[in-house]
Order: sequence, then structure tokens, then C-alpha cells
Amino acid sequence: MTYFDNAATTFYKPEPVQKAVVSAMKFLSANPGRSGHALSIKAAQLVHKTRAKTAEFVGLARGNIIFCLNCTQALNYAILGSVREGGHVITTVLEHNSVLRPLFELQRAGRIGLTVLPPDKSGAVSASSVQKALTADTYLVATNHVSNVTGAVAPIKEIGALCRKYGILYLVDAAQSCGYAHVSMDGDNIDLLALAPHKGLHAPQGLGVLAVRENVPLSPVLFGGTGTDSTSVYQPRELPEAFESGTLPTPAIAGLNASLSWTRKHMADAHERLSVLGEYLTAHLQKIHGITLYSAPDSSPGIVSFNIGDLHSADVANILSEQYDIALRGGLHCAPLIHKHLGTLDQGIVRASLGIDTTYAEVDFLLRAVREVSGA
Amino acid sequence: MTYFDNAATTFYKPEPVQKAVVSAMKFLSANPGRSGHALSIKAAQLVHKTRAKTAEFVGLARGNIIFCLNCTQALNYAILGSVREGGHVITTVLEHNSVLRPLFELQRAGRIGLTVLPPDKSGAVSASSVQKALTADTYLVATNHVSNVTGAVAPIKEIGALCRKYGILYLVDAAQSCGYAHVSMDGDNIDLLALAPHKGLHAPQGLGVLAVRENVPLSPVLFGGTGTDSTSVYQPRELPEAFESGTLPTPAIAGLNASLSWTRKHMADAHERLSVLGEYLTAHLQKIHGITLYSAPDSSPGIVSFNIGDLHSADVANILSEQYDIALRGGLHCAPLIHKHLGTLDQGIVRASLGIDTTYAEVDFLLRAVREVSGA
Repeated sequence: MTYFDNAATTFYKPEPVQKAVVSAMKFLSANPGRSGHALSIKAAQLVHKTRAKTAEFVGLARGNIIFCLNCTQALNYAILGSVREGGHVITTVLEHNSVLRPLFELQRAGRIGLTVLPPDKSGAVSASSVQKALTADTYLVATNHVSNVTGAVAPIKEIGALCRKYGILYLVDAAQSCGYAHVSMDGDNIDLLALAPHKGLHAPQGLGVLAVRENVPLSPVLFGGTGTDSTSVYQPRELPEAFESGTLPTPAIAGLNASLSWTRKHMADAHERLSVLGEYLTAHLQKIHGITLYSAPDSSPGIVSFNIGDLHSADVANILSEQYDIALRGGLHCAPLIHKHLGTLDQGIVRASLGIDTTYAEVDFLLRAVREVSGA
Repeated sequence: MTYFDNAATTFYKPEPVQKAVVSAMKFLSANPGRSGHALSIKAAQLVHKTRAKTAEFVGLARGNIIFCLNCTQALNYAILGSVREGGHVITTVLEHNSVLRPLFELQRAGRIGLTVLPPDKSGAVSASSVQKALTADTYLVATNHVSNVTGAVAPIKEIGALCRKYGILYLVDAAQSCGYAHVSMDGDNIDLLALAPHKGLHAPQGLGVLAVRENVPLSPVLFGGTGTDSTSVYQPRELPEAFESGTLPTPAIAGLNASLSWTRKHMADAHERLSVLGEYLTAHLQKIHGITLYSAPDSSPGIVSFNIGDLHSADVANILSEQYDIALRGGLHCAPLIHKHLGTLDQGIVRASLGIDTTYAEVDFLLRAVREVSGA
């Protein structure tokens, strides 16, 4: 099989990551931070170290790292946990449903006002667009760092500076960028950052991260045992406990711990490899008759989006899977509004997303397959 | 290390479970149900099979299996997803904070009325107590199957029958029973059942299960991409998608799949082993001067709760850990109201929870340590 669906989940999981997961399952099957015994303490130390390592990785000097199931939960915790009743939120048409759906549900319930900005010619939403959309009630701006459909890169530093100036929270969905591009919460003025470690960090599925800057007000969304304040039948409000009720996914956290070390060593290589191969793929796709390309001009490396004539993107994905054993994704990629904007709500878009293990030979094979399907 | 904290997480993870997790990480790192390609379909098939196997295991012929992070999330989905504004809920002092905290938060917000029942002499809450607490507004009864503090077994079949008679939803927290005792949602009239696979099913941490009987009305609590109805910016209401936004924890689901097969073969043995060893431990603890036992008379096997004189339970746990390398748990076990009821809110309780790999020699070692600590 030739795998071009790394933007969903990276196929490649480094050996040290696999070993860390197995080791945690075999030797750390105790509940971190709940009991006082040696194994529980050892598990708690692993969790603590991984929090510190994650904070350092995302450039957060003072704040908290919350572990949850996946990036979607992290985004929900940020959005539902920061609601100001009657307040106003700004987001963009480039967002994934993990951001759009919680926001639109809040809007429909009459709890917030919502402005959804379109991209400018660069393919991303500019800081000046955000500035124009500000109201006296705006308390949150939510954008992704990199679009999962077009690869468009948001000017997070500029938007962050704007939010800081006006005292507005800035939430960044870094699902597609983390592990490929540097993100600095302190440097870029990000208050809330959501990560999908199973993508660019090459960690296993089953873990999401929400990084929260110190003093960002956040109310718990789910409730349960935290191992703290146990005499109380009410949820503690301290982070990260407020958002970490119940047993933590220690094996996946051990995997993240290993994957952060691995990523530190390989991130520059990954970016370089994805850039070179992405440009190569894009350049050759452009030459094929009938291909429409959707990747933004300065898009993030590794996400190459296109259609073949007016063939439905899901049909193209099916043909490539069945006839060539190529794994990529058609459809809407859970991001409806960017398709409305691009006029691809019916056709969807074919997305080839590259990984650190993608080779020239694989890209050539994909190009041959696309040529054959397009009849070129 | 001698491990007596299996009620938190079972230490023993069977070889096939470990192998299934590793295999999913290595060969199934794709997003189930999102893309149309072969690997995504293979992952989706694994998830589908595991749902069917779980439903069969809990005796649910028609309904849905929802996968989430842990049992606490499953309980939150059940409690927050079934809220009837202004309605009334009945629960018990035996519950874990994973049930108490969401219910008390709803009560404090003025959304529900709440009755919390004490146990009778059996140590559990009787169906007749529940019947007496019913009001015209009662829409939900929530009890655990087995108390994580005393091991008391609730008469779930009787309570289920009562709930069925009055058209009230019955939620059972089976965190402590699943894998050791048979639960049948159809046979016991359970509408919502929450599982902690990393305990009695010997699956890895990082997965919770909520089993939902067909036609039980449940509204989503978190929102995001579901791979369904992707043109909509609102959360679909169909189960299980409504509660499964974002990437599923495929490795842990693969682990559950293997662990269900393993458990089917070993469940009778596990029950037998825990019964015999639990009785042995209890009988010998009773003979030690100054020991107070809290395990209910007909308690579930494997949970043996006690105190040594007026020594604080956390101190006992620390001494046992540091001087004997015995891992067990003191404190409140995230269940404050049963301690209020038992008068152990200050002292807490020492809990020794046995596992399928516990040996007579280990129990004897624990008994020797307790004798020495007690000065007997």
C-alpha cells in the first residue's frame, strides 16, 4: 500500500514510540497521581515529565498541559470551557468541524455571537480581517495554524499580537502543523493551543493535548474523580486536574514522551522532506491536463489538494485505492465552509498528504495513477 | 513489587492484548471511518467488530457502543447527555465522583433535583429505597454495580426492573464489575452502562465505553468531525457518531477487542480466584488485633477494605509501599459520600484490590506486613 493520508494520521510510528507504549502497558499499568505507591508515583512522574516536555516544545514557559482523547476534545475544552455568555467569537471558513461545530452549537443555543471570516488571496485569513471583525464583545479568536484542506498557513503571530493588544483570547488549532512547523505560544501570543500528537508528532492515536497559558480562565466541561480535593462532590477548578477526570491514557502519554524526543531530532528533516516532495508533486500535477489544484500558494508542505476534471473526489479516492492500493482521502475532510468558499461542496477535494517516510518513487507512482485516471 | 491496586488499573495485561495494541500502532495507523481507502476501511472494520463484541459481552441486542477516553467520560456522556431540565435524579452515597460530580454540578446549576440514597444493612442500596425516593419528575437512576470502596454489590436487576416499570432510565457504572461479574443490559433492564476496560477486562488505559440501549434519548456533549453529515456545521444526533468526534483511539480499541476474547475464556477463573483469595485475606485480616474491616458482607470478590487502628490510611499505604514495596491505595478513592456515611472522611480507608495474577504468597506477604504495621 502507498499511504498518502498522513494528515489524518501519520502511518509511520518510530520504534522508540512503539517501545514506550508497550513498556508503559507492561510495567506502568497503575493510575498516575491517584495512589501513593511506587508504581503510581512512577506513572505520575512520566506524566509530569511529558507535560514539561510538551510545554517546552510549544514554547509555553508558564501554563498548563491538559491530556485528553484527541485534538477535537482539546478544542472543545478550549471553546466550551472559555464561553462568555452573550460574548462574540471570530473564526474562519478554513476551520475543521472540531472548531466549527462547538462554535455553531453555542451560537444556535443563543450563548454567543459568531463571525466566520473568509480567506484573502493568500488562502488564509489576515490579521487585518480579524481586526475589522472585532466587536466590543469579542472574547475569543479561533483559527487553525494550517488548513487540513488547502494547507494554507495562518499568520498566527500577527493575529496573536492583535488579540494580545485587545485582551482577547487566541485559540490555535495546530493539528496539522505541530511536528512540522515551530509553534511558540509565548512568541506568537497564543493563549490556547490544541495538538493532535498522532499526526506530525508520530505518536499513537488516543491522545489529544490542550496547552493553556497561565491565568487563562477556563471552566471544566466534564466532571469526575481527579485525585484532588476528594472530599468534595464538586469539580476542582485548578488546571490541569479540572479537565483530567478519570484514568489518564498512560501508554499514549508514554508514546508522546518518546515522540517529542524523536521529533526534536527529525523536525527539520521532516519539514525539508515534505517541502521538496510536496513541491515536486505539485509541479508535476500542474502539468496534467484537467487537474485543478487547491493548495494555497504558500501552503504548508505535505498537503497537496486537487481534483481531476469533474470526477467526484470520493470516486477518485476509491479508484486509487482499489486499482492502485494508494491510500488518500476524498470528500469534505470535515471542513464544510472552505468547500462552500471554493465551490467544491459537491465534488469535494482529493487530498494527498505526505509523510516523513514518503519516497520519490511513491510520489511518481501517485502521479502515474492520477495521469491514468485523468486519461491524460 | 507486590501489586494490590487492581481496582484502579489491573497490572496484568495479557500477551494477546499487548500484541493487538502494537499491531494496530504498526499496521493500522489510519483513521477508521474517515477515508475510503483500504487501511481506513480495515481500521473501521476493527472498530465495528469491537463494538459488536462489546455489545454481545454486555448482553445488549439492540443499541450502540460509544468509545471514549475512560469510564468517567462515558458516565459524563450518559449523565450530561440525558439531562431533562427540571427533572429529578436518584443516586447513592456509594458512587464515585465520576457520577457524583456531574450530578452535583447539574444540581448546583439548578438544572436537576437530586436524591442521594444511603445503603441499607447489606451495604448496598435496595430497590425499595429507590422506589420510595421516586418523584413524578424522576427520569434517571444512577448506581454503580460494585462499590470501589467497599465492594458492595448493588441489586441492579431489581433496580432495573423498577426503572423499567416506571419508564425511568437506569445508568449503571460497571467500572469495578465488568470482567469479573456477568452484566446483561437486556436481562437486567439497564439503559446506559459505563465500562472501564483497563480494569477487569485487562485492556490498556486510554479507553472508556458507554453502552446505550436502542431509543434511549441522548444529546451530544462535545462536538466535532464525525466523518458523517460533513456539509453541516452542527453535530449529528445519531449514535455512536454524535459522541465520537475526532480520531478514535484505534490501538486501545484493538486492545479491547483482544481482551474481550481473553476475558470470555478467563472470567470464571478470575471470579473464582478473586473469591478464594479475597475470602482468605479477609478471614486472616479479621484475626489481627485493631483491624476494622469495611468490605460489605456479600461484597464483590477482590476488594478488601480496612483500617489499622486509627492510623491514617494514606500513612499505612505509604509505609506498605516504602518498607514492603506493596502497592495499594489509601485515602478516599474519589468517593467522598460513602466515607461520610462510614465515618472515615478523615482517616480514609486502605483498599487491597486483588487481580487475576495475585498469589497466596503475595496475600501472605501483605498479611505479614499489616501485622507488623499494626504491632500485632
